[in-house]
Amino acid sequence: MQSAECPPTQPFVIIIFGGNGDLSRQKLLPALYNLDADGYLHADGKIVLVSRKELTTDTFKSQIRDVFKQKIPEQYDEVIWKKFVAKIYYQTLEATNPQDFTQLKQLLNQLTTHNVDLIHYLATPPTLFGTICENLGAANLNHDNTRVVIEKPLGKDLASSRKINDEIAQHFRENQTFRIDHYLGKETVQNLLAIRFANSLFEPMWNNEGIDHVEITVAETLGVEGREAYYSTTGALKDMLQNHILQLLCLVAMEPPNNLDADSVRDEKLKVLKSLRPIVGKDIREKTVRGIYTSGSVGGESVKGYLELMQAFDKNNTPMTSHRHLAETFVALNVNIDNWRWEGVPFYLRTGKRLPKRYSEIVIFFKPIPHSIFSQKKEDIEPNKMVIRLQPEETIELHITNKVPSLAQDNMKLRSAALNLSLSQAFNSQRRIDAYERLLLDVINNTATLFMRRDEVEAAWQWIDHITRGWESFHYDCYSYVAGTWGPTASIALPLKDNRVWYE
Amino acid sequence: MQSAECPPTQPFVIIIFGGNGDLSRQKLLPALYNLDADGYLHADGKIVLVSRKELTTDTFKSQIRDVFKQKIPEQYDEVIWKKFVAKIYYQTLEATNPQDFTQLKQLLNQLTTHNVDLIHYLATPPTLFGTICENLGAANLNHDNTRVVIEKPLGKDLASSRKINDEIAQHFRENQTFRIDHYLGKETVQNLLAIRFANSLFEPMWNNEGIDHVEITVAETLGVEGREAYYSTTGALKDMLQNHILQLLCLVAMEPPNNLDADSVRDEKLKVLKSLRPIVGKDIREKTVRGIYTSGSVGGESVKGYLELMQAFDKNNTPMTSHRHLAETFVALNVNIDNWRWEGVPFYLRTGKRLPKRYSEIVIFFKPIPHSIFSQKKEDIEPNKMVIRLQPEETIELHITNKVPSLAQDNMKLRSAALNLSLSQAFNSQRRIDAYERLLLDVINNTATLFMRRDEVEAAWQWIDHITRGWESFHYDCYSYVAGTWGPTASIALPLKDNRVWYE
Repeated sequence: MQSAECPPTQPFVIIIFGGNGDLSRQKLLPALYNLDADGYLHADGKIVLVSRKELTTDTFKSQIRDVFKQKIPEQYDEVIWKKFVAKIYYQTLEATNPQDFTQLKQLLNQLTTHNVDLIHYLATPPTLFGTICENLGAANLNHDNTRVVIEKPLGKDLASSRKINDEIAQHFRENQTFRIDHYLGKETVQNLLAIRFANSLFEPMWNNEGIDHVEITVAETLGVEGREAYYSTTGALKDMLQNHILQLLCLVAMEPPNNLDADSVRDEKLKVLKSLRPIVGKDIREKTVRGIYTSGSVGGESVKGYLELMQAFDKNNTPMTSHRHLAETFVALNVNIDNWRWEGVPFYLRTGKRLPKRYSEIVIFFKPIPHSIFSQKKEDIEPNKMVIRLQPEETIELHITNKVPSLAQDNMKLRSAALNLSLSQAFNSQRRIDAYERLLLDVINNTATLFMRRDEVEAAWQWIDHITRGWESFHYDCYSYVAGTWGPTASIALPLKDNRVWYE
Repeated sequence: MQSAECPPTQPFVIIIFGGNGDLSRQKLLPALYNLDADGYLHADGKIVLVSRKELTTDTFKSQIRDVFKQKIPEQYDEVIWKKFVAKIYYQTLEATNPQDFTQLKQLLNQLTTHNVDLIHYLATPPTLFGTICENLGAANLNHDNTRVVIEKPLGKDLASSRKINDEIAQHFRENQTFRIDHYLGKETVQNLLAIRFANSLFEPMWNNEGIDHVEITVAETLGVEGREAYYSTTGALKDMLQNHILQLLCLVAMEPPNNLDADSVRDEKLKVLKSLRPIVGKDIREKTVRGIYTSGSVGGESVKGYLELMQAFDKNNTPMTSHRHLAETFVALNVNIDNWRWEGVPFYLRTGKRLPKRYSEIVIFFKPIPHSIFSQKKEDIEPNKMVIRLQPEETIELHITNKVPSLAQDNMKLRSAALNLSLSQAFNSQRRIDAYERLLLDVINNTATLFMRRDEVEAAWQWIDHITRGWESFHYDCYSYVAGTWGPTASIALPLKDNRVWYE
C-alpha cells in the first residue's frame, strides 16, 4: 500500500500513558498497527505502553492480539503482527511516582541510543495531566525532541481549561503540545478543505451572498449508561459542542488560510471563534435549547430516561455535586458569526443522546434561485445543498436540480439529485482510514495542522461560558424529549422561527 | 409509460412532404411511433405521407414496418404497430402540381370533419419550400390552424436565407413557421437550461468572473461521400457551425430569460447572436482556421481525401461551380461576445469531418483558483470544468477537485473527478428520447421555444457572411489535415495562442 511518495517516519518512541485502557487498546494500537502494516512507521519505531496495572509485556501482547483479531480482522495478519509486536513494550508505572519515571527513562535508554523523538500520549483522565508532565519534566523526558498529546475533556470551562494548559505549559512549549479532536482526523473533514480551496466553483459562493444557512448535527443513539459520573457534570454542550461541533464550524466558516501550515490554519479558525456572537441576555431563550431525554425506544429497544438513570446511579454511589441535575443530554443553538462573510447567515448546531439515528453531518444550504423561469414556482425548486457526512459513512454530496428525461408537456420536470463529490466510491476497495491513523502519523511527523492550539480551545470555552452562565442566571431548565425522537419540540422551532427546517 | 400529467395532444393531421425520403422513414416516423406508443398522440391523430413516388398506402406501410423492425426493434410491438399504422395514409403528390394539392385537400376532408390542426412538415430540398407553400396557400391549406415545419439548410447566406423565409412568409405567419435545429431537441440541451437556471450554484459564476473560456466541438468521423454536390457549395462553416454550434453557443451564453415562452427564450438567443463580434480584417487570419482533409485512416479504415473524392465526382457529373474547391471540411473559430457578461471570455468553436472520433461537446472551463494553499502549485490544480456531451451519449459532467483518501505526508493529494450531473443514470432503464420526438410533440402542441425564429437565423447568417466574405477577399485558403487527425495544426494553435488547449 505504501507508495514511494510517502517515506516512512523518522525513528520515534511513542509512550502511551493509560496504555492498558480502552482508548489505547481499541483505537491507538489498532491505528498504529495499520500504519505499520502500510509501511508508514520507521523500522526503529517503538511503542511503550505504561499503566498502573501489573502485566508482563508478553501477557499484554497476547491480549492485544485478541483485540486486533476481533477489532480489525480484515487487516490482521500473522506476518505483519510479528513485525508490529516487536515494537511493543509494556511497563508498569504509577503516574504519581517519580521513581517510576526514572525507570521509564532507563527503558527508553535501552530501546534507543540516539536522541530520537519521544511522543507522550496521555490517554489518562485530565486530572493526571499535570502530575505526569511534572514527572516527565523531572526525569528530563521533555527535551526539545519530545511532544505531548492530550485529548478532551480539556476542562469544563475557561478557568479549568486554563489550569490544565498551564500545568502542561510548565514542562512543554505550545508547539510541543498536540491537542486532539478526532473529528479533525476524518478524511472528509480534510476533503472539505480540498472542496473549498481547490475548486474555484464553491469559494465565490461560500458567503452570505451564496449561502442561506448552515446546519451541523452530531446525533448519537447511545445514552449516558456507564458514563453517568462524567456526564452529570458535563452535558452535551461541553461534551460535544464546545469541541467537535465548533471545530467543524470553524472549518466551514474560516477564511482561506495562506497555506496549510499549522498556524496559518489555526489563526483562521481562531478568528472564527472570536467572531462568534456571544449568546447572552434574552438570546439565551431565543437561541439555545437544552433537553433531557425521558424513557422511550431507540432502534426498537426500550431505554431508561436520563433522570431515572441518574437516580439509580446516586443510590449506588456517593452523591455528586448539586449541579448534576443540570447536565443536558441535548443542545441546539442558533449561532451568528459577526464578520463580513457570514453576516445574516445562521449556523444551526445540535447534538444529543438517544436520538433516532447515529450520524454527524454538516449541511450547507445555498440560497434559493432568485426567480423561476420554469412552470414551477421558485419555492418549489429545491435550493442547492452540500451535505458533508462524517459518520457513520464519510461522504460529501452536492444536491443539484436537473431536468427529468421526459416528454412531459409542462415544458420541464425538475428534480434534485444528490451527487457524491468525494472520491470514496473510486476508492471503495481501499480500507477506510481511521482518524487516529491520520492524527498519530501527524504527531510522529510533528505536523500540527489538525490539532487544536491553546488559544482556540480557550476562545471556544470563553464563548461556551456565556451560555452556561446564561443558563444558570436565567434558570433556563432543560426541556424533555422522549428517547428516540429528534430532541425537544423547542429545537424544531429553533430554525422554524426563521422558516427553515432541520435536514433529515 | 405515459403519465397522468402528460395528457395526449389535441387531434391533428401531420402531412410529411418528402414522406418517402430518408428523414421521414428513418427519423420522423420512428419518432411518431414512439410518441404514439407512449400515449402522447391523440387517438384521432393522422399522419399523411406525400411524395412523388407512386406507392399504395399498403405497400408503404409494409415498408415502414420493415424499417421499424430494424431501426427500433426494442420498441416494435405488433399491438402498438396496429394502433399506429391506422393513423397512416400515403398519397402521391408532385410538389409543383396544384391539382395534387386539391386531391390532398380532399383526402384531408375525408380524414377529419372538424377544423383540426394541420402540420405541414417539409422534408424536401429547400428549393421546393416556396412552391409547396404557394400550392398550400392556393388550396387554402394555410389557415390559422396550420403550421409549417422546415429544417436546414435554410439558405447559404443571408440573402438566400431571406429568400426562403420570404417565400414561406407569403403564405404562413412567423408564429406558424417552425424551423428545426434538431440539436435543440436533445434532452441534454434542455437539461442545460435546468442546470443553469434551476440551481443557484452556477449562475453567479456563469460570466467572465467565473468562466475562463468555453469550447464547443462537433466532430464527425464521416467524410462527404454521397453528399459531394451539396457539400462542395456548403462546407463546414455553413453546414454545421452556422446552425448547430451557434445555437448551442446561444444557450450557453444567453442571459436568463423571464420564462420559457418561445419569444422570451428566442429574444435572449437573438441578443447573443447580435453580440457576436464580427470577424473581419486581420482577425480572419487570427481567429479562423479552415481545413480540408487528405487521405488517411479513420477507425482503422483507409479513406480518400476530399479533393480526390471531388475529382472522382466531377468525372462522373456535370462540372460544379468554380467555388466548389473552397468548401472546407473543417472550421475552427475563436469567437468573442461583446457584452457585459462575456467580455474577455473566448468561445472556441470547431467542427469537422473525418476527425478521429464522433462526438459533440460543450466544455465550460471555470477560472483556476487564485491561490493554492496546498503543496501543489496552483497551476497543477485542475480548474473546474463542466462537460456537456450531446453525442454519442448525452451527459453533463462536473469536474471537481478532491482529496484522494490517503495518509500521504505531503499533506494532501488532490485529484479531479468527473461527476455525472444529469439524471441519465437514474433513468437508465428508460429508452433514450430522440430529439425528433421532443420537437414533433412540440410542433403538434404549438410550442415554439425549441425552434428558431427568423431573426435568429438571419442574425446568424449575417455574422457568418462576414467570415465567408473575409475568406474570399483575403484569399484565405484551407489548410490540409490528414483524415483521422484533429484538424489542421493551425486549429490546435488557435487556443494555444492564448495558452489554452482543446479538451479531448
